[in-house]
Amino acid sequence: METTTFASQKPQMEPISKAKIKWIRSLQLKKVREEEQVFVVEGEKMVLEGLSSAIDPELVVVHRDYTTLLNQTLSCPVFIAGNSEMEQLSGLKTPNKLVAVFRKPQFPSVENGLRIVLDGVQDPGNMGTIMRLADWFGVSEIICSNDTVDCFNPKVVQASMGAVFRINVKYAHLPEFLKNATTPVYGALLNGTHYREINYVNDAFLVMGNEGKGISDALLPFITDKVTIPRYGEAESLNVATATAILLAEIRK
Amino acid sequence: METTTFASQKPQMEPISKAKIKWIRSLQLKKVREEEQVFVVEGEKMVLEGLSSAIDPELVVVHRDYTTLLNQTLSCPVFIAGNSEMEQLSGLKTPNKLVAVFRKPQFPSVENGLRIVLDGVQDPGNMGTIMRLADWFGVSEIICSNDTVDCFNPKVVQASMGAVFRINVKYAHLPEFLKNATTPVYGALLNGTHYREINYVNDAFLVMGNEGKGISDALLPFITDKVTIPRYGEAESLNVATATAILLAEIRK
Repeated sequence: METTTFASQKPQMEPISKAKIKWIRSLQLKKVREEEQVFVVEGEKMVLEGLSSAIDPELVVVHRDYTTLLNQTLSCPVFIAGNSEMEQLSGLKTPNKLVAVFRKPQFPSVENGLRIVLDGVQDPGNMGTIMRLADWFGVSEIICSNDTVDCFNPKVVQASMGAVFRINVKYAHLPEFLKNATTPVYGALLNGTHYREINYVNDAFLVMGNEGKGISDALLPFITDKVTIPRYGEAESLNVATATAILLAEIRK
Repeated sequence: METTTFASQKPQMEPISKAKIKWIRSLQLKKVREEEQVFVVEGEKMVLEGLSSAIDPELVVVHRDYTTLLNQTLSCPVFIAGNSEMEQLSGLKTPNKLVAVFRKPQFPSVENGLRIVLDGVQDPGNMGTIMRLADWFGVSEIICSNDTVDCFNPKVVQASMGAVFRINVKYAHLPEFLKNATTPVYGALLNGTHYREINYVNDAFLVMGNEGKGISDALLPFITDKVTIPRYGEAESLNVATATAILLAEIRK
Protein backbone atom coordinates (compact mmCIF):
# COMPACT_ATOMS: atom_id res chain seq x y z
CA MET A 1 0.00 0.00 0.00
CA GLU A 2 1.29 3.40 -0.94
CA THR A 3 1.85 5.71 2.01
CA THR A 4 2.54 9.40 1.75
CA THR A 5 4.80 11.03 4.32
CA PHE A 6 4.52 14.67 5.28
CA ALA A 7 6.37 17.12 7.46
CA SER A 8 6.71 15.86 11.01
CA GLN A 9 3.91 17.92 12.61
CA LYS A 10 1.38 16.54 10.15
CA PRO A 11 -0.43 13.27 10.74
CA GLN A 12 0.48 10.21 8.68
CA MET A 13 -2.02 9.79 5.87
CA GLU A 14 -2.91 6.89 3.63
CA PRO A 15 -5.31 6.54 0.71
CA ILE A 16 -8.83 5.59 1.76
CA SER A 17 -10.01 2.06 0.97
CA LYS A 18 -13.30 1.05 -0.68
CA ALA A 19 -14.32 -0.68 2.55
CA LYS A 20 -13.84 2.49 4.61
CA ILE A 21 -15.82 4.53 2.07
CA LYS A 22 -18.62 1.99 2.30
CA TRP A 23 -18.54 2.06 6.10
CA ILE A 24 -18.69 5.87 6.29
CA ARG A 25 -21.51 5.90 3.77
CA SER A 26 -23.41 3.31 5.83
CA LEU A 27 -23.37 5.73 8.78
CA GLN A 28 -26.10 7.71 7.02
CA LEU A 29 -28.36 5.05 8.57
CA LYS A 30 -29.46 5.44 12.19
CA LYS A 31 -29.33 1.68 12.75
CA VAL A 32 -25.65 1.53 11.78
CA ARG A 33 -24.81 4.64 13.87
CA GLU A 34 -26.39 2.92 16.86
CA GLU A 35 -24.51 -0.32 16.33
CA GLU A 36 -21.20 1.45 15.86
CA GLN A 37 -21.79 4.30 18.36
CA VAL A 38 -20.25 6.85 15.99
CA PHE A 39 -21.49 9.67 13.74
CA VAL A 40 -20.27 11.59 10.68
CA VAL A 41 -19.35 15.27 10.54
CA GLU A 42 -18.80 17.01 7.20
CA GLY A 43 -17.19 20.32 6.38
CA GLU A 44 -13.99 22.06 7.26
CA LYS A 45 -15.34 24.29 10.03
CA MET A 46 -17.28 21.65 11.93
CA VAL A 47 -14.64 18.91 11.58
CA LEU A 48 -11.91 21.22 12.92
CA GLU A 49 -14.23 22.28 15.75
CA GLY A 50 -14.82 18.61 16.59
CA LEU A 51 -11.11 17.83 16.50
CA SER A 52 -10.40 20.57 19.02
CA SER A 53 -13.30 19.46 21.27
CA ALA A 54 -13.27 16.75 23.91
CA ILE A 55 -15.08 14.31 21.58
CA ASP A 56 -12.97 11.38 20.30
CA PRO A 57 -12.36 11.22 16.56
CA GLU A 58 -12.49 7.74 15.03
CA LEU A 59 -11.02 8.75 11.67
CA VAL A 60 -10.62 11.77 9.41
CA VAL A 61 -10.83 11.91 5.62
CA VAL A 62 -9.23 14.83 3.83
CA HIS A 63 -9.38 15.73 0.15
CA ARG A 64 -5.93 15.30 -1.37
CA ASP A 65 -5.76 18.96 -2.40
CA TYR A 66 -6.45 20.21 1.12
CA THR A 67 -4.15 18.19 3.38
CA THR A 68 -2.74 21.45 4.75
CA LEU A 69 -6.04 21.88 6.63
CA LEU A 70 -4.76 19.27 9.07
CA ASN A 71 -1.65 20.61 10.71
CA GLN A 72 -2.15 19.32 14.23
CA THR A 73 -1.20 15.86 15.50
CA LEU A 74 -4.26 13.63 15.62
CA SER A 75 -4.90 10.59 17.72
CA CYS A 76 -6.82 8.84 14.91
CA PRO A 77 -6.09 7.57 11.39
CA VAL A 78 -6.23 10.11 8.59
CA PHE A 79 -7.18 9.06 5.05
CA ILE A 80 -6.73 10.87 1.76
CA ALA A 81 -9.48 10.90 -0.86
CA GLY A 82 -10.06 12.36 -4.31
CA ASN A 83 -13.21 13.97 -5.71
CA SER A 84 -15.07 10.79 -6.58
CA GLU A 85 -14.24 9.12 -3.27
CA MET A 86 -15.41 12.20 -1.36
CA GLU A 87 -18.63 12.09 -3.36
CA GLN A 88 -19.15 8.42 -2.58
CA LEU A 89 -18.73 8.75 1.16
CA SER A 90 -20.60 12.04 1.52
CA GLY A 91 -24.28 12.48 2.20
CA LEU A 92 -24.21 15.95 0.70
CA LYS A 93 -24.75 17.08 -2.87
CA THR A 94 -21.58 19.17 -2.79
CA PRO A 95 -18.96 17.06 -1.05
CA ASN A 96 -16.55 18.59 1.41
CA LYS A 97 -12.82 18.89 1.75
CA LEU A 98 -12.93 17.34 5.20
CA VAL A 99 -15.09 14.59 6.69
CA ALA A 100 -14.67 12.93 10.07
CA VAL A 101 -16.22 10.15 12.08
CA PHE A 102 -16.50 10.80 15.81
CA ARG A 103 -17.49 8.58 18.70
CA LYS A 104 -20.85 9.56 20.17
CA PRO A 105 -20.16 11.85 23.14
CA GLN A 106 -20.92 10.73 26.69
CA PHE A 107 -22.06 13.80 28.59
CA PRO A 108 -22.97 13.63 32.26
CA SER A 109 -26.73 13.81 32.78
CA VAL A 110 -28.03 17.12 34.11
CA GLU A 111 -30.61 17.34 36.85
CA ASN A 112 -31.29 21.07 36.89
CA GLY A 113 -31.26 24.25 34.83
CA LEU A 114 -33.32 24.96 31.76
CA ARG A 115 -34.00 21.83 29.72
CA ILE A 116 -35.82 21.45 26.41
CA VAL A 117 -38.21 18.54 25.82
CA LEU A 118 -38.97 17.68 22.17
CA ASP A 119 -42.09 15.67 21.43
CA GLY A 120 -41.83 14.14 17.96
CA VAL A 121 -39.81 16.80 16.12
CA GLN A 122 -39.27 15.26 12.66
CA ASP A 123 -37.34 17.70 10.52
CA PRO A 124 -33.53 17.38 10.78
CA GLY A 125 -33.10 21.11 10.09
CA ASN A 126 -35.42 21.99 12.96
CA MET A 127 -33.68 19.56 15.31
CA GLY A 128 -30.22 20.92 14.46
CA THR A 129 -31.41 24.52 14.78
CA ILE A 130 -32.92 23.78 18.20
CA MET A 131 -29.60 22.23 19.32
CA ARG A 132 -27.82 25.38 18.12
CA LEU A 133 -30.34 27.52 20.04
CA ALA A 134 -29.81 25.41 23.16
CA ASP A 135 -26.09 26.00 22.76
CA TRP A 136 -26.61 29.78 22.44
CA PHE A 137 -29.04 30.10 25.34
CA GLY A 138 -27.12 27.84 27.72
CA VAL A 139 -29.73 25.09 27.86
CA SER A 140 -28.26 22.19 29.82
CA GLU A 141 -29.94 19.26 28.10
CA ILE A 142 -32.47 18.23 25.44
CA ILE A 143 -34.77 15.30 26.18
CA CYS A 144 -36.54 13.83 23.12
CA SER A 145 -39.41 11.43 22.62
CA ASN A 146 -38.28 8.21 20.98
CA ASP A 147 -39.94 9.25 17.70
CA THR A 148 -37.93 12.50 17.48
CA VAL A 149 -35.31 12.57 14.72
CA ASP A 150 -31.88 11.20 15.69
CA CYS A 151 -29.54 13.96 16.86
CA PHE A 152 -26.67 12.24 15.00
CA ASN A 153 -28.51 12.27 11.66
CA PRO A 154 -26.04 13.97 9.27
CA LYS A 155 -28.50 16.77 8.43
CA VAL A 156 -29.07 17.44 12.13
CA VAL A 157 -25.33 17.52 12.77
CA GLN A 158 -24.94 19.97 9.88
CA ALA A 159 -27.67 22.33 11.13
CA SER A 160 -26.41 22.15 14.73
CA MET A 161 -23.28 24.10 13.75
CA GLY A 162 -21.13 22.37 16.34
CA ALA A 163 -23.73 22.17 19.11
CA VAL A 164 -23.59 18.38 18.68
CA PHE A 165 -20.16 18.54 20.39
CA ARG A 166 -21.54 20.35 23.45
CA ILE A 167 -25.23 19.68 24.02
CA ASN A 168 -26.43 16.49 25.67
CA VAL A 169 -29.41 15.02 23.83
CA LYS A 170 -31.15 12.00 25.27
CA TYR A 171 -34.18 9.95 24.24
CA ALA A 172 -36.87 8.80 26.62
CA HIS A 173 -40.49 7.76 27.00
CA LEU A 174 -41.68 11.30 27.75
CA PRO A 175 -44.75 10.63 29.95
CA GLU A 176 -42.56 8.43 32.13
CA PHE A 177 -39.83 11.09 32.18
CA LEU A 178 -42.07 14.11 32.90
CA LYS A 179 -44.00 12.25 35.58
CA ASN A 180 -41.04 12.83 37.88
CA ALA A 181 -40.56 16.52 37.08
CA THR A 182 -40.37 18.69 40.20
CA THR A 183 -39.90 21.99 38.34
CA PRO A 184 -42.34 23.95 36.12
CA VAL A 185 -43.06 22.38 32.73
CA TYR A 186 -43.77 25.07 30.12
CA GLY A 187 -45.51 23.82 26.98
CA ALA A 188 -45.92 25.71 23.68
CA LEU A 189 -49.61 25.35 22.90
CA LEU A 190 -52.43 27.27 21.28
CA ASN A 191 -54.87 28.96 23.66
CA GLY A 192 -52.39 29.22 26.50
CA THR A 193 -51.19 32.26 28.40
CA HIS A 194 -49.47 35.02 26.39
CA TYR A 195 -45.82 33.99 26.56
CA ARG A 196 -44.84 37.42 27.96
CA GLU A 197 -47.19 37.16 30.93
CA ILE A 198 -45.48 34.26 32.65
CA ASN A 199 -42.89 34.60 35.40
CA TYR A 200 -40.42 32.06 34.15
CA VAL A 201 -37.89 30.35 36.35
CA ASN A 202 -34.59 29.08 34.96
CA ASP A 203 -34.90 25.65 36.56
CA ALA A 204 -37.61 24.28 34.29
CA PHE A 205 -38.59 22.23 31.26
CA LEU A 206 -39.76 23.75 27.97
CA VAL A 207 -41.81 21.29 25.89
CA MET A 208 -42.04 21.81 22.11
CA GLY A 209 -44.23 19.59 19.93
CA ASN A 210 -44.23 17.99 16.50
CA GLU A 211 -44.22 20.25 13.41
CA GLY A 212 -47.78 19.36 12.40
CA LYS A 213 -49.50 17.97 15.47
CA GLY A 214 -47.92 19.95 18.30
CA ILE A 215 -47.60 18.42 21.76
CA SER A 216 -49.28 15.02 22.07
CA ASP A 217 -52.27 14.53 24.36
CA ALA A 218 -50.35 12.10 26.56
CA LEU A 219 -48.08 14.93 27.73
CA LEU A 220 -50.77 17.51 28.51
CA PRO A 221 -51.27 16.39 32.14
CA PHE A 222 -47.60 17.22 32.84
CA ILE A 223 -47.65 20.77 31.43
CA THR A 224 -47.85 23.24 34.32
CA ASP A 225 -47.94 26.39 32.14
CA LYS A 226 -49.36 26.58 28.61
CA VAL A 227 -47.58 29.34 26.70
CA THR A 228 -48.74 30.91 23.44
CA ILE A 229 -47.00 33.26 21.02
CA PRO A 230 -49.72 35.51 19.60
CA ARG A 231 -50.09 35.97 15.87
CA TYR A 232 -50.16 39.40 14.21
CA GLY A 233 -50.51 38.32 10.58
CA GLU A 234 -52.00 35.50 8.55
CA ALA A 235 -49.57 32.59 8.76
CA GLU A 236 -51.15 29.38 9.95
CA SER A 237 -48.35 28.51 12.32
CA LEU A 238 -44.82 29.27 13.45
CA ASN A 239 -41.96 26.91 12.67
CA VAL A 240 -41.03 24.92 15.80
CA ALA A 241 -37.41 26.15 15.80
CA THR A 242 -38.40 29.81 15.54
CA ALA A 243 -41.01 29.36 18.28
CA THR A 244 -38.32 27.75 20.45
CA ALA A 245 -36.06 30.75 19.78
CA ILE A 246 -38.73 33.23 20.89
CA LEU A 247 -39.54 31.29 24.07
CA LEU A 248 -35.88 30.73 25.04
CA ALA A 249 -35.14 34.43 24.56
CA GLU A 250 -38.10 35.25 26.82
CA ILE A 251 -37.17 32.75 29.54
CA ARG A 252 -33.59 34.06 29.50
CA LYS A 253 -34.59 37.75 29.61
CA MET B 1 -55.16 12.64 -27.52
CA GLU B 2 -57.06 10.78 -24.84
CA THR B 3 -59.14 12.97 -22.58
CA THR B 4 -60.74 11.80 -19.37
CA THR B 5 -64.05 13.30 -18.33
CA PHE B 6 -65.10 13.60 -14.72
CA ALA B 7 -68.17 14.71 -12.81
CA SER B 8 -69.23 18.21 -13.78
CA GLN B 9 -67.75 20.07 -10.81
CA LYS B 10 -64.30 18.64 -11.51
CA PRO B 11 -61.92 20.30 -13.95
CA GLN B 12 -61.16 18.67 -17.29
CA MET B 13 -57.88 16.82 -17.11
CA GLU B 14 -55.51 15.51 -19.74
CA PRO B 15 -52.27 13.51 -19.58
CA ILE B 16 -49.20 15.68 -19.19
CA SER B 17 -46.84 15.95 -22.17
CA LYS B 18 -43.06 15.54 -22.16
CA ALA B 19 -42.71 19.19 -23.16
CA LYS B 20 -44.73 20.37 -20.16
CA ILE B 21 -42.70 18.16 -17.81
CA LYS B 22 -39.52 19.65 -19.23
CA TRP B 23 -40.87 23.19 -18.85
CA ILE B 24 -41.89 22.69 -15.21
CA ARG B 25 -38.52 21.11 -14.48
CA SER B 26 -36.76 24.10 -16.09
CA LEU B 27 -38.46 26.39 -13.57
CA GLN B 28 -35.99 25.13 -10.96
CA LEU B 29 -33.71 27.74 -12.55
CA LYS B 30 -34.03 31.38 -11.50
CA LYS B 31 -33.26 32.59 -15.01
CA VAL B 32 -36.19 30.67 -16.46
CA ARG B 33 -38.54 31.78 -13.66
CA GLU B 34 -37.62 35.37 -14.46
CA GLU B 35 -38.20 34.95 -18.17
CA GLU B 36 -41.53 33.23 -17.66
CA GLN B 37 -42.64 35.22 -14.56
CA VAL B 38 -43.98 32.06 -12.91
CA PHE B 39 -42.94 29.74 -10.06
CA VAL B 40 -43.57 26.16 -8.93
CA VAL B 41 -45.40 25.05 -5.80
CA GLU B 42 -45.30 21.43 -4.66
CA GLY B 43 -47.43 19.56 -2.17
CA GLU B 44 -51.11 19.14 -1.53
CA LYS B 45 -51.46 21.70 1.27
CA MET B 46 -49.57 24.55 -0.39
CA VAL B 47 -51.04 24.00 -3.87
CA LEU B 48 -54.59 24.03 -2.49
CA GLU B 49 -53.77 27.14 -0.47
CA GLY B 50 -52.44 28.81 -3.61
CA LEU B 51 -55.52 27.83 -5.62
CA SER B 52 -57.78 29.46 -3.05
CA SER B 53 -55.60 32.61 -2.91
CA ALA B 54 -55.72 35.61 -5.23
CA ILE B 55 -52.63 34.40 -7.12
CA ASP B 56 -53.26 33.16 -10.68
CA PRO B 57 -52.50 29.51 -11.40
CA GLU B 58 -50.88 28.77 -14.74
CA LEU B 59 -51.39 25.01 -14.59
CA VAL B 60 -51.88 22.19 -12.11
CA VAL B 61 -50.47 18.66 -12.25
CA VAL B 62 -52.17 15.97 -10.20
CA HIS B 63 -51.09 12.37 -9.63
CA ARG B 64 -53.55 10.06 -11.34
CA ASP B 65 -54.43 8.32 -8.06
CA TYR B 66 -55.33 11.59 -6.33
CA THR B 67 -57.55 13.45 -8.79
CA THR B 68 -60.20 13.72 -6.08
CA LEU B 69 -58.00 16.33 -4.40
CA LEU B 70 -59.19 18.78 -7.05
CA ASN B 71 -62.92 19.19 -6.69
CA GLN B 72 -63.25 22.87 -7.40
CA THR B 73 -63.53 24.49 -10.83
CA LEU B 74 -60.19 25.88 -11.89
CA SER B 75 -59.42 28.62 -14.36
CA CYS B 76 -56.27 26.85 -15.61
CA PRO B 77 -55.39 23.59 -17.36
CA VAL B 78 -55.06 20.49 -15.18
CA PHE B 79 -52.75 17.65 -16.18
CA ILE B 80 -52.59 14.07 -14.93
CA ALA B 81 -49.27 12.38 -14.22
CA GLY B 82 -48.01 9.02 -12.97
CA ASN B 83 -45.18 8.29 -10.54
CA SER B 84 -42.31 8.61 -12.98
CA GLU B 85 -43.68 11.81 -14.53
CA MET B 86 -44.15 13.34 -11.07
CA GLU B 87 -40.55 12.40 -10.29
CA GLN B 88 -39.29 13.97 -13.49
CA LEU B 89 -41.01 17.31 -12.98
CA SER B 90 -40.37 17.56 -9.24
CA GLY B 91 -37.40 19.15 -7.54
CA LEU B 92 -37.99 17.04 -4.44
CA LYS B 93 -36.65 13.62 -3.52
CA THR B 94 -40.13 12.40 -2.61
CA PRO B 95 -42.46 13.70 -5.32
CA ASN B 96 -45.87 15.03 -4.44
CA LYS B 97 -49.44 14.25 -5.39
CA LEU B 98 -50.02 17.82 -6.49
CA VAL B 99 -47.76 20.35 -8.21
CA ALA B 100 -48.78 23.73 -9.61
CA VAL B 101 -47.25 26.60 -11.51
CA PHE B 102 -48.42 30.06 -10.45
CA ARG B 103 -47.87 33.49 -11.97
CA LYS B 104 -45.61 35.63 -9.78
CA PRO B 105 -47.88 37.79 -7.59
CA GLN B 106 -48.06 41.55 -8.06
CA PHE B 107 -48.52 43.07 -4.63
CA PRO B 108 -48.89 46.80 -4.15
CA SER B 109 -45.73 48.32 -2.67
CA VAL B 110 -45.97 49.30 0.99
CA GLU B 111 -44.64 52.60 2.31
CA ASN B 112 -45.11 52.08 6.04
CA GLY B 113 -45.36 49.52 8.82
CA LEU B 114 -42.69 47.08 9.90
CA ARG B 115 -40.50 45.99 6.98
CA ILE B 116 -37.65 43.46 6.94
CA VAL B 117 -34.47 44.16 4.96
CA LEU B 118 -32.33 41.11 4.06
CA ASP B 119 -28.70 41.70 3.15
CA GLY B 120 -27.34 38.66 1.31
CA VAL B 121 -29.31 35.85 2.96
CA GLN B 122 -28.21 32.73 1.02
CA ASP B 123 -29.92 29.70 2.47
CA PRO B 124 -33.34 28.92 0.94
CA GLY B 125 -34.59 27.42 4.22
CA ASN B 126 -33.70 30.62 6.08
CA MET B 127 -35.35 32.79 3.44
CA GLY B 128 -38.56 30.75 3.48
CA THR B 129 -38.62 30.70 7.29
CA ILE B 130 -38.20 34.48 7.40
CA MET B 131 -41.10 34.87 4.95
CA ARG B 132 -43.20 32.63 7.20
CA LEU B 133 -42.20 34.73 10.23
CA ALA B 134 -43.10 37.93 8.34
CA ASP B 135 -46.48 36.38 7.63
CA TRP B 136 -46.99 35.48 11.32
CA PHE B 137 -45.87 38.83 12.69
CA GLY B 138 -47.74 40.96 10.15
CA VAL B 139 -44.65 42.38 8.44
CA SER B 140 -45.79 44.34 5.43
CA GLU B 141 -42.87 43.79 3.08
CA ILE B 142 -39.41 42.22 2.71
CA ILE B 143 -36.75 44.13 0.80
CA CYS B 144 -33.73 42.06 -0.27
CA SER B 145 -30.30 42.87 -1.61
CA ASN B 146 -29.82 41.63 -5.15
CA ASP B 147 -27.55 38.82 -3.93
CA THR B 148 -30.21 37.42 -1.56
CA VAL B 149 -31.65 34.05 -2.63
CA ASP B 150 -34.67 34.25 -4.97
CA CYS B 151 -37.96 34.14 -3.05
CA PHE B 152 -39.43 31.91 -5.80
CA ASN B 153 -36.68 29.30 -5.46
CA PRO B 154 -38.60 26.01 -4.91
CA LYS B 155 -36.93 25.39 -1.54
CA VAL B 156 -37.81 28.91 -0.38
CA VAL B 157 -41.42 28.42 -1.49
CA GLN B 158 -41.51 25.12 0.41
CA ALA B 159 -40.14 26.63 3.64
CA SER B 160 -42.43 29.68 3.38
CA MET B 161 -45.47 27.49 4.10
CA GLY B 162 -47.77 29.63 1.99
CA ALA B 163 -46.29 33.01 2.92
CA VAL B 164 -45.18 33.30 -0.72
CA PHE B 165 -48.86 33.91 -1.56
CA ARG B 166 -49.18 36.82 0.87
CA ILE B 167 -45.85 38.55 1.52
CA ASN B 168 -44.41 41.05 -0.91
CA VAL B 169 -40.70 40.44 -1.47
CA LYS B 170 -38.75 42.88 -3.57
CA TYR B 171 -35.11 43.17 -4.59
CA ALA B 172 -33.14 46.40 -4.56
CA HIS B 173 -29.72 47.99 -4.29
CA LEU B 174 -29.91 48.36 -0.51
CA PRO B 175 -27.69 51.42 0.09
CA GLU B 176 -29.78 53.26 -2.50
CA PHE B 177 -32.99 52.02 -0.91
CA LEU B 178 -32.09 52.75 2.73
CA LYS B 179 -30.71 56.19 1.87
CA ASN B 180 -34.31 57.38 1.63
CA ALA B 181 -35.53 55.78 4.86
CA THR B 182 -37.36 58.24 7.13
CA THR B 183 -38.11 55.73 9.91
CA PRO B 184 -35.75 53.95 12.34
CA VAL B 185 -33.52 51.28 10.81
CA TYR B 186 -32.77 48.51 13.33
CA GLY B 187 -29.82 46.30 12.45
CA ALA B 188 -28.90 42.96 14.04
CA LEU B 189 -25.22 43.35 14.88
CA LEU B 190 -22.69 42.25 17.46
CA ASN B 191 -21.78 44.86 20.10
CA GLY B 192 -25.03 46.77 19.76
CA THR B 193 -27.62 47.63 22.40
CA HIS B 194 -29.27 44.72 24.22
CA TYR B 195 -32.34 44.03 22.05
CA ARG B 196 -34.66 44.41 25.06
CA GLU B 197 -33.47 47.90 25.88
CA ILE B 198 -34.73 49.60 22.74
CA ASN B 199 -38.07 51.37 22.46
CA TYR B 200 -39.13 49.99 19.12
CA VAL B 201 -41.67 51.66 16.88
CA ASN B 202 -43.80 49.66 14.46
CA ASP B 203 -43.06 51.90 11.51
CA ALA B 204 -39.48 50.83 10.91
CA PHE B 205 -36.99 48.64 9.05
CA LEU B 206 -35.29 45.61 10.56
CA VAL B 207 -32.06 44.71 8.73
CA MET B 208 -30.73 41.13 8.95
CA GLY B 209 -27.41 40.14 7.40
CA ASN B 210 -25.81 37.24 5.59
CA GLU B 211 -25.43 33.87 7.42
CA GLY B 212 -21.66 34.12 7.69
CA LYS B 213 -20.73 37.75 7.25
CA GLY B 214 -23.65 39.60 8.81
CA ILE B 215 -24.66 43.06 7.59
CA SER B 216 -22.27 44.47 5.00
CA ASP B 217 -20.21 47.57 5.74
CA ALA B 218 -21.97 49.54 3.02
CA LEU B 219 -25.21 49.45 5.03
CA LEU B 220 -23.80 50.46 8.41
CA PRO B 221 -24.24 54.23 7.86
CA PHE B 222 -28.00 53.69 7.48
CA ILE B 223 -28.51 51.68 10.70
CA THR B 224 -30.00 53.98 13.35
CA ASP B 225 -30.09 51.34 16.14
CA LYS B 226 -27.69 48.41 16.46
CA VAL B 227 -29.45 45.57 18.29
CA THR B 228 -27.77 42.53 19.85
CA ILE B 229 -29.20 39.31 21.25
CA PRO B 230 -26.93 38.32 24.13
CA ARG B 231 -25.49 34.84 24.34
CA TYR B 232 -25.85 32.63 27.43
CA GLY B 233 -24.02 29.54 26.20
CA GLU B 234 -21.19 28.60 23.87
CA ALA B 235 -22.61 28.67 20.34
CA GLU B 236 -20.66 30.86 17.96
CA SER B 237 -23.74 32.45 16.43
CA LEU B 238 -27.49 32.36 16.08
CA ASN B 239 -29.14 31.26 12.84
CA VAL B 240 -30.45 34.32 10.95
CA ALA B 241 -34.05 33.03 10.90
CA THR B 242 -34.12 32.38 14.64
CA ALA B 243 -32.55 35.78 15.35
CA THR B 244 -35.23 37.36 13.14
CA ALA B 245 -37.89 35.50 15.14
CA ILE B 246 -36.58 36.83 18.45
CA LEU B 247 -36.36 40.42 17.19
CA LEU B 248 -39.81 40.40 15.54
CA ALA B 249 -41.36 39.01 18.72
CA GLU B 250 -39.70 41.81 20.68
CA ILE B 251 -40.72 44.59 18.27
CA ARG B 252 -44.30 43.27 18.31
CA LYS B 253 -44.48 42.94 22.11
